[in-house]
This record gives sequence, C-alpha cells and structure tokens, in this order.
Amino acid sequence: MNYYGDHIGRLIEELSRLPGIGGKTAQRLAFHIVGLPAEKSDALAAAIVGAKKNIKYCSTCCTITDDDPCAICANVKRDASMIMVVEDPRDMAAYENTHEFKGLYHILHGAISPMNGVGPNDLKIRELIARLGSEQITEVILATNPNVEGEATAMYISRLIKPLGVLVTRIAHGVPIGGDLEYVDQVTLSRALSGRREM
Amino acid sequence: MNYYGDHIGRLIEELSRLPGIGGKTAQRLAFHIVGLPAEKSDALAAAIVGAKKNIKYCSTCCTITDDDPCAICANVKRDASMIMVVEDPRDMAAYENTHEFKGLYHILHGAISPMNGVGPNDLKIRELIARLGSEQITEVILATNPNVEGEATAMYISRLIKPLGVLVTRIAHGVPIGGDLEYVDQVTLSRALSGRREM
Repeated sequence: MNYYGDHIGRLIEELSRLPGIGGKTAQRLAFHIVGLPAEKSDALAAAIVGAKKNIKYCSTCCTITDDDPCAICANVKRDASMIMVVEDPRDMAAYENTHEFKGLYHILHGAISPMNGVGPNDLKIRELIARLGSEQITEVILATNPNVEGEATAMYISRLIKPLGVLVTRIAHGVPIGGDLEYVDQVTLSRALSGRREM
Repeated sequence: MNYYGDHIGRLIEELSRLPGIGGKTAQRLAFHIVGLPAEKSDALAAAIVGAKKNIKYCSTCCTITDDDPCAICANVKRDASMIMVVEDPRDMAAYENTHEFKGLYHILHGAISPMNGVGPNDLKIRELIARLGSEQITEVILATNPNVEGEATAMYISRLIKPLGVLVTRIAHGVPIGGDLEYVDQVTLSRALSGRREM
C-alpha cells in the first residue's frame, strides 16, 4: 500500500524500474530526492532528459558521444590500422583506462543472443564491415565478453571478416591477475592451460 | 576520465550523488536510462520534478502526503487517543503494514543527533506538544529507532511530555522473532532479559 501519496508513489515506482533498484532502495532514493533542495533534484531530472535528448552516436565507431566523430576516432595519433571490437562503450572505457591500446574501437551495442531476441542485424556489425572496406585496417581484435553470447558474437564476426583477408584475433582467456587458482572456475583453468605460452 | 561525452558524464555524476549509488552503479543506471525509450526516461524525470514540487506535509502529523490532512489523520475510525511518534514516514508505513496499530501518528523527520548538527528544534517536536494541548490524547508511544539517536530523542520527548499528565510508553526492545539467540548482539540480549514478562 502507498502511504505517501501519489507523487512519491510514482517516483518510487519509476525508480524501482531501474536495473538493480528494488522496492526498498527505490523508497530510500525517493525520500532522499524529496529531501534535496529543489535545484539539486531539478538538476538530476534535467541530466536525465538532457542525456537522452542530446546523445549522439559516432558515425565511425558507433560509441556514445557529444561530437561526431568521437574524440578517439578524431585523434590522428591513434593507430588506424587496428580496430578493437567491444560490446559496449563501457568496455571501451575499461580498455582505455589500461592505456595499453592505441588503435581504434568499434562498439557493437550488444551481443548475439537468440534467447533475448538479439540477432546479428541488431548489432553494429554491418558498420564494422563497411569500415573494413573503406579504412586501412590490418587487424581486428575481438574483445566481446567472455561468456556464451560474447563468444558466439566473436565467432560470427570472425567468420565474416576472415574472407576479407584481415587478421582477426581474440583477447586471451586465462587466470586473472591477482586471482587464486583454487577459486578459479574449471572452464577458465582449462582455457588458461590450452592458451599457455613459452616463457 | 570521461569517455562518453558531457551529457552522459553529467547524468553519471548526478546519479552517483544518490545514497548507496557508487560510480559503477551510476554508470550502469545512466546507460540504462539512455537506452530507454524517450517517454520512459521523461517519465522518470517528470516523477522527480513532480514529487519535489507537489509534496505537502500533513499539518497535523507532519507526514508526507498529497492531501492535508493525510488519509490517516482524516480517518474518523482511527483511535484519536493514541499517538505513535516515529522518525520517518517509512517507519509509519512499516507499522501500518502490521495492521496492529489503530491510533494516529506523529512524524519527527529525524532524531536528535548532535554529531550531525540535528537538535530538538530541527524536529517536529513543537508540533507534537501543540497536538497534546489541543487533541484528546491519553497515550504517546515513542517508536523512534532503537539506536543512540533514537533513544536520546525518546528520552528527550518523554521528559517534555510527562509533566503534561499524558502516559508515555516506548516500544519493546528484545530478541527479534525468527532470530537466533546465538547471533543476537549483547545489548539486545540484556534488553530482552530486563524486559522479560511473566507467561
């Protein structure tokens, strides 16, 4: 039952639709928002509307950006011969934070997942193939997630690209750094074994 | 570093200011919101603005409400001789969900906490005393939280009210139902012992 009136009730309902936000958390957030000064709660609402309204996608790599092309695609110092294919802009940010990769990215916006009704045509795969035709790409690194959907997507893309004569690689699977072998799952352990390299 | 542009960056920043929402969660929520259809993200923003703008406080019990007086204060079937004093509208909702209490409520909107700069004048204590003067109240039940601030607040209010000739009671402290004695803290155990009743 709603003891707080319709306005708070609606806010709680809207918040509880967000991923990972249950009823109790939504209630806590709603009361926090109502307790904020009006300019702060308005700023939050404006940020939501603004982000949704002003969002653009880079016409080259398909990431979310304010400017088209995005800062990475527009950077002439990047190595334009390599493309790392990731599922999500957050995956790109994760790799950027390593400062190890100097090439370009391509964001698929998802992975092939027949269970969720996501097929190859729902991803930015066509845009990737178009880039391979027009740009001077020599290597495509598939950095989709190491799960069933990510592996299937990597497999699908590699079969599409290989006939084009471009080197296709997959990021290594293995034991994570700082991990404890005892707690690593069996699939990862067997991947780490099969991917062993000479020291 | 912000790889997503200013609009998403601002949304992530605003979301991460909410209680219990860290940087990673804020990022996940922001991408979820940007991925929503525009009418859904607008509905969330409108709920935030609407809740803040239209919120009213019941002039009797000080709860958050759409109508003044609130549904509970306006209900003539409630027992108007008892007031349960709680810190927060959520505490009121928790007691309402038990369907055990048929009296009225009074919401303090906090507890005395010198560490956080909250004194008696920041709470709705004056409003409570005013009700005792004008309404036919015979019992005030102090249901502030069972922590240092809640206990101090209960003590403060009971000292104010007792001279007015009104019965002041405190909800019982003890072992929670369904709990396991082994895992109950020492303070609760000793409170349960001192509060024992004949069977």
